[in-house]
Amino acid sequence: MSNRVTEHGRHVVVTEIDRADPESVAGLGPIGTATIHEAIGRRGYLGPELRPIQTGVRVAGAAVTVLSHPGDNLMIHAAVEVCSPGDILVVTTTAPSTHGMFGDLLASSLMARGVRGLVIDAGVRDTADLRTMGFAVWTRHVSCQGTVKATPGSVNVPIAINGVGVAPGDVVCADDDGVVVVSRDEASWALERSLARLDSEETTRARLTAGELGLDFYGLRDKLRELGVDYVDRLEA
Amino acid sequence: MSNRVTEHGRHVVVTEIDRADPESVAGLGPIGTATIHEAIGRRGYLGPELRPIQTGVRVAGAAVTVLSHPGDNLMIHAAVEVCSPGDILVVTTTAPSTHGMFGDLLASSLMARGVRGLVIDAGVRDTADLRTMGFAVWTRHVSCQGTVKATPGSVNVPIAINGVGVAPGDVVCADDDGVVVVSRDEASWALERSLARLDSEETTRARLTAGELGLDFYGLRDKLRELGVDYVDRLEA
Amino acid sequence: MSNRVTEHGRHVVVTEIDRADPESVAGLGPIGTATIHEAIGRRGYLGPELRPIQTGVRVAGAAVTVLSHPGDNLMIHAAVEVCSPGDILVVTTTAPSTHGMFGDLLASSLMARGVRGLVIDAGVRDTADLRTMGFAVWTRHVSCQGTVKATPGSVNVPIAINGVGVAPGDVVCADDDGVVVVSRDEASWALERSLARLDSEETTRARLTAGELGLDFYGLRDKLRELGVDYVDRLEA
Amino acid sequence: MSNRVTEHGRHVVVTEIDRADPESVAGLGPIGTATIHEAIGRRGYLGPELRPIQTGVRVAGAAVTVLSHPGDNLMIHAAVEVCSPGDILVVTTTAPSTHGMFGDLLASSLMARGVRGLVIDAGVRDTADLRTMGFAVWTRHVSCQGTVKATPGSVNVPIAINGVGVAPGDVVCADDDGVVVVSRDEASWALERSLARLDSEETTRARLTAGELGLDFYGLRDKLRELGVDYVDRLEA
Amino acid sequence: MSNRVTEHGRHVVVTEIDRADPESVAGLGPIGTATIHEAIGRRGYLGPELRPIQTGVRVAGAAVTVLSHPGDNLMIHAAVEVCSPGDILVVTTTAPSTHGMFGDLLASSLMARGVRGLVIDAGVRDTADLRTMGFAVWTRHVSCQGTVKATPGSVNVPIAINGVGVAPGDVVCADDDGVVVVSRDEASWALERSLARLDSEETTRARLTAGELGLDFYGLRDKLRELGVDYVDRLEA
Amino acid sequence: MSNRVTEHGRHVVVTEIDRADPESVAGLGPIGTATIHEAIGRRGYLGPELRPIQTGVRVAGAAVTVLSHPGDNLMIHAAVEVCSPGDILVVTTTAPSTHGMFGDLLASSLMARGVRGLVIDAGVRDTADLRTMGFAVWTRHVSCQGTVKATPGSVNVPIAINGVGVAPGDVVCADDDGVVVVSRDEASWALERSLARLDSEETTRARLTAGELGLDFYGLRDKLRELGVDYVDRLEA
Repeated sequence: MSNRVTEHGRHVVVTEIDRADPESVAGLGPIGTATIHEAIGRRGYLGPELRPIQTGVRVAGAAVTVLSHPGDNLMIHAAVEVCSPGDILVVTTTAPSTHGMFGDLLASSLMARGVRGLVIDAGVRDTADLRTMGFAVWTRHVSCQGTVKATPGSVNVPIAINGVGVAPGDVVCADDDGVVVVSRDEASWALERSLARLDSEETTRARLTAGELGLDFYGLRDKLRELGVDYVDRLEA
Repeated sequence: MSNRVTEHGRHVVVTEIDRADPESVAGLGPIGTATIHEAIGRRGYLGPELRPIQTGVRVAGAAVTVLSHPGDNLMIHAAVEVCSPGDILVVTTTAPSTHGMFGDLLASSLMARGVRGLVIDAGVRDTADLRTMGFAVWTRHVSCQGTVKATPGSVNVPIAINGVGVAPGDVVCADDDGVVVVSRDEASWALERSLARLDSEETTRARLTAGELGLDFYGLRDKLRELGVDYVDRLEA
Repeated sequence: MSNRVTEHGRHVVVTEIDRADPESVAGLGPIGTATIHEAIGRRGYLGPELRPIQTGVRVAGAAVTVLSHPGDNLMIHAAVEVCSPGDILVVTTTAPSTHGMFGDLLASSLMARGVRGLVIDAGVRDTADLRTMGFAVWTRHVSCQGTVKATPGSVNVPIAINGVGVAPGDVVCADDDGVVVVSRDEASWALERSLARLDSEETTRARLTAGELGLDFYGLRDKLRELGVDYVDRLEA
Repeated sequence: MSNRVTEHGRHVVVTEIDRADPESVAGLGPIGTATIHEAIGRRGYLGPELRPIQTGVRVAGAAVTVLSHPGDNLMIHAAVEVCSPGDILVVTTTAPSTHGMFGDLLASSLMARGVRGLVIDAGVRDTADLRTMGFAVWTRHVSCQGTVKATPGSVNVPIAINGVGVAPGDVVCADDDGVVVVSRDEASWALERSLARLDSEETTRARLTAGELGLDFYGLRDKLRELGVDYVDRLEA
Repeated sequence: MSNRVTEHGRHVVVTEIDRADPESVAGLGPIGTATIHEAIGRRGYLGPELRPIQTGVRVAGAAVTVLSHPGDNLMIHAAVEVCSPGDILVVTTTAPSTHGMFGDLLASSLMARGVRGLVIDAGVRDTADLRTMGFAVWTRHVSCQGTVKATPGSVNVPIAINGVGVAPGDVVCADDDGVVVVSRDEASWALERSLARLDSEETTRARLTAGELGLDFYGLRDKLRELGVDYVDRLEA
Repeated sequence: MSNRVTEHGRHVVVTEIDRADPESVAGLGPIGTATIHEAIGRRGYLGPELRPIQTGVRVAGAAVTVLSHPGDNLMIHAAVEVCSPGDILVVTTTAPSTHGMFGDLLASSLMARGVRGLVIDAGVRDTADLRTMGFAVWTRHVSCQGTVKATPGSVNVPIAINGVGVAPGDVVCADDDGVVVVSRDEASWALERSLARLDSEETTRARLTAGELGLDFYGLRDKLRELGVDYVDRLEA
């Protein structure tokens, strides 16, 4: 829990974390967040406020987490050092912030370490450059407002965004529909379920495209009857 | 009225509706919503919260309406069956919802029936796929959060979005500026007025591009004087 | 101050204004707003609500300001006449407005006078056309809702947007990250500082890209220690 | 529908309307909106944005409706004349407005005619005076920002607020939980259902207060089992 | 202008300011903000987001202004020293903040110096205590989230809130409807106009209470006709 | 973490939880949330969106947590059974909801079991009755919109609200400033720190009330100098 991890208010940088197994992360990468979210029981979605600054990018990686003071990016700098290739940085703040806490310089640093992207519940800047560099970002705000480097925080402690927990090493999956987090321990199970769902979606898509109705395919006609929905030819004025 | 159509709280699927005449719909298709909205007396705009997930698409079609429980897409499935080629599905919920209530599978179904697009006062998902498929969508939210299929609602009853009524068969006009609804009975009148306005805008544009001022063109100098607006060379510090 | 400029509530159109020196404006044009904002002491940012309707455009120009009644674009028409080549029109309203107060016809007029763009704390319409025409816009809303031309206001008086003042002749700098305003008197100083910052950013980028850590480069390790941030290998469960 | 009532954009003041029968209105007056809303099938609620400016007031009355231009209260003045004792004025605007469109002077006028309250999807002012006068108000905003009297609109046409239609003569029920609208034709049915629900709520309350569980009273234990909810003693860490 | 006052980004505490004349301030105190706002030409309103934490308090005072870093109340402490009896502290931040930047301890300090209240475009805490102490507050947020004292800012420089400028020494008028700012130079003129308006409102109120219609009293019937508003007996279904 | 607690998407009702020690809870009860929040290192605040429906109530209790589907209060009914005297129910939903998910009947049930209050990140109804009954509530919305009882969820699993974790048995502290959560294991430490802070606040208050400045008391004058804040007599125009 975010209010518990740093016992008695201590600020820490945790340097070693257990990451979800790389095969599962690699497998989840090309699967859409909507499919994964359904497959694991409609959990882990960080909410519609976190939007990509680019279109058409889909990625998965292991979470390195940052808990920052609003308008202060000191701890993001501290986090760079503990990132490994394939990670995704996930940043939140102790109170809402619109500041552009991340820009092209930090992105240069992260790309040099093989980090795949950034998820931030605050703001980013240099968005034109970030798009040009091909560094993927999901953010709540775009803002050129800069920050200070003055206040302590923590790296690699469990955090929560929009009521969803993110622990270090969890799988972060992101695309045009937003960001879904899969618990580290559930990664292989989530991959298996997502692949199964992809298969079944494929079948469904084929039949719906051929004109079969969802009402028939999913057997919903009985449900409508049971719920008391009436079919009428016309509605009298 | 949305709170009246289903007398005593009855849920209905209305299977036959009168649609605006196809010629008027076809005529309104390529005209911008800003022009139509002005032409019919600044009415029918569904508000700035409904945004396209694509750019550069302009479309008009007859409304098939859906009133759903938030986070439940059962009635959207029921609506597919009563759609005809050229229709646009218009969905609202009985309370605000950010759920992704519509995705690529439902789009496959609707495209198989010739439906031209979706307007939804809730959320959609699979947006990357929807853009690839060329299925046009105007929505309040993008969210990968899935839904259940458990609660009754109605299809083809009058609904209202942001204070504007949408009746089944009304003309739905949508482009990058948002969505405007034209009453079924006013379709040909609206087309006529919109074409007239297009003509006059053409003339205006030519003269303004040539450097003539709107102040002169519209005769606004007298109005400014009458309203007590003073011209001064400089503002003293 | 916006509530002071029109003494005793008088409405005025000020026809002559002192503009920031053209060399400084030209120099600031290609520099990113995030860099300028940092260079001048993190001031002048109009906030994350004002978003571009296009991507990849960066521009600077001298401000011509408009204070309008919400939903009424009479004063924007009055402002066209006092614009000069290289200006940027900056519009705000006396109360919040989502109306599309500006569209392709006004853009035609402004382009005929060499105006470089529009910043508006309200709404615009005809966005597809504006993008096609290449007229750059930063706005709070996109809305096809039209306006009247009935209520007085002022042109070229000091205004404020999101708590930041904009005086006529100030330098308006805008790109994908938003809009930053530089005071007319500070234009050359701001350019000098921004160029210096660009230089230093270049060096920093090279070193970060080569893998040097921001922690070392900025000397932040001592700061972390001093703030009581502990490094730990692992977090016990 | 609000975009349909004034055929071809015509503005009208309708002077005679059919009101819900006074006995039903009187009966609904002291019943809470939550009870009425449930009793009629969870419909007719105008949404959480419309809040009372006072506490502890519960009232019902027949709707006189007003459709105004934002920031312009001309049509509210026009509506006073067509109000009768026991009415409630319901005001909306053609675009969002935070203006204080109604204050103590209009309240004096309405009280002189026996009007019971105001529901407005915009703003009010003079709230301290309104509370002192005992004039009940439900509103989206409180704002001292005044309005003009310059733009046409309509009185007693069907309007919609937050997606719920309000027709002239409908029953408007309001208390600390918000505003619920009951269709004129459904008034006596709604009263009957609400009274029945009050009765059953009374029984339920007595048993729950005595310590009986809702799980048992509503028979929800089977439902939980059927939905796959497991009971466990403790959650392992 | 807020982005100009501290030349080249300098932070200052201005210790001496010219205040509006005390007689005008005293005269404006008991007049409602809605009346003052109308009397001076519908200007100076800080917007509906700034709400009182108490009800029924009306006050006016000279502004001492503070420009703070979000989540940092160092400069509020600096401002206490330059306050005089009868002042009202007006605080804004360089970026949006929900922090509770002011509580009962600072209120104790200000009350010891005779300060009449606080207007803050951020958050306050200890609201129960503040109400008990009788210290009047208008704020955007209530939040128990505390702040640091680490970042520089300025005292008694011109600031702007919601697009309205506030200069040191201006008259701040506040009540249940919100906050209106009157320029220091316009204080006596504003008082005179407000008293005149109070008089005319008194007459109007008497006649409206007696049943005379605003339509007749303000002569609006001609305006309705001229604007094309039709009177009809009934609206056909 | 909320997305982890119910392994593989399982829904559970946990019947036995470890609660914070009763002495610490009792001790924290009368202390303000602002004091507690500061004392434990500015953590645990659930954000300004959760507001009390009453004024002047201060309470602490052990958390019983509920994770519900939006617009469905089935799991709140399930939670009643596992509540003990002195508990506070804390409810969140898997997606945002404005529904009135809790009313006077559920409050009767909880009061019968000695529960002290409700914290809910959704909506409540029957607010007039709840105030009369003296049942304390902190909520995001007030809405008479009713719910269904159809979808599974969990009771007594860790949840998160606004990025702050709440585990079953944690101490929930609430008053007019909002809600602060103290981890179960930190309860006695938090009480000790809060009492120490209360003491020091008492001293501070006495000295500030006597006119001593915070600048001197906290030794901030050096800090201002060091940060480059200049004192100037007057600001030249």
